Amino acid sequence: MATGVFDLLHLGHVHYLTEAKKLGDELVVVVARDSTARKVKHQPITKEEMRCELVAALKPVDKAILGHEGNIYDILDEVKPDIIALGYDQAHDEAQIISECKKRGLASAKVVRMPKFEGDIDGTRKIVRRVAEWLRMQEKLAMFEDERV
Amino acid sequence: MATGVFDLLHLGHVHYLTEAKKLGDELVVVVARDSTARKVKHQPITKEEMRCELVAALKPVDKAILGHEGNIYDILDEVKPDIIALGYDQAHDEAQIISECKKRGLASAKVVRMPKFEGDIDGTRKIVRRVAEWLRMQEKLAMFEDERV
Repeated sequence: MATGVFDLLHLGHVHYLTEAKKLGDELVVVVARDSTARKVKHQPITKEEMRCELVAALKPVDKAILGHEGNIYDILDEVKPDIIALGYDQAHDEAQIISECKKRGLASAKVVRMPKFEGDIDGTRKIVRRVAEWLRMQEKLAMFEDERV
Repeated sequence: MATGVFDLLHLGHVHYLTEAKKLGDELVVVVARDSTARKVKHQPITKEEMRCELVAALKPVDKAILGHEGNIYDILDEVKPDIIALGYDQAHDEAQIISECKKRGLASAKVVRMPKFEGDIDGTRKIVRRVAEWLRMQEKLAMFEDERV
């Protein structure tokens, strides 16, 4: 099982899911609800159903499902994972995940932290910054065009 | 064969490639070079190698390759496609593609225009607009936070 918001899909996401798939036979990805993303990170740019469908279209992913509203651990009862793969930069508390698994009768579930990937990988924030720069350039070009008229 | 810039990957891209794959056995996707994208559309937000790797990670895609710099039709000699799938909104001239195929000994190549998908599909421009709105909101929130200090 892997989890995330997966807003503005980028190569960091693909690498994380590719490594997660290598840990087992079937990779189920839990895509965060818009309401959960708002609480823990920020309002997503892309709606939850679209984020989920896009993740499901990736080669390493066997199944993508939306998380639960409210308690983020309730999805464990549904997926019953053997292994939970965390991204290198995900803020989850590993001890708390293990404890939530035990509460739910998943005593043998393991949590594995994925390695950081080398190379110039874009994060969503980096993409957002580049979109902002791009927009400023477009606005400048538009002003220049107006002056020429 | 399918083609595109595939900047800020979204569900419209996935639907286009899924339909393209249904037309044959092997789907080769030609991802536009940064220089070509600049000429025909605009400077891409994501670099060509990353756009290509992300497209290659999609389930319907058997192979993703970068296009040629310069003459966009030269890639036909390499791919030798039986069928060229065009997105519903791609501005390519179908007659010219057929003529370029014939010049290159690909007399039986067909060009098929994919249907438009129903539903609220994001285009790259729509995503860019939402990123801009999102940034404005973040800036407002930051100003509000500053005032409270």
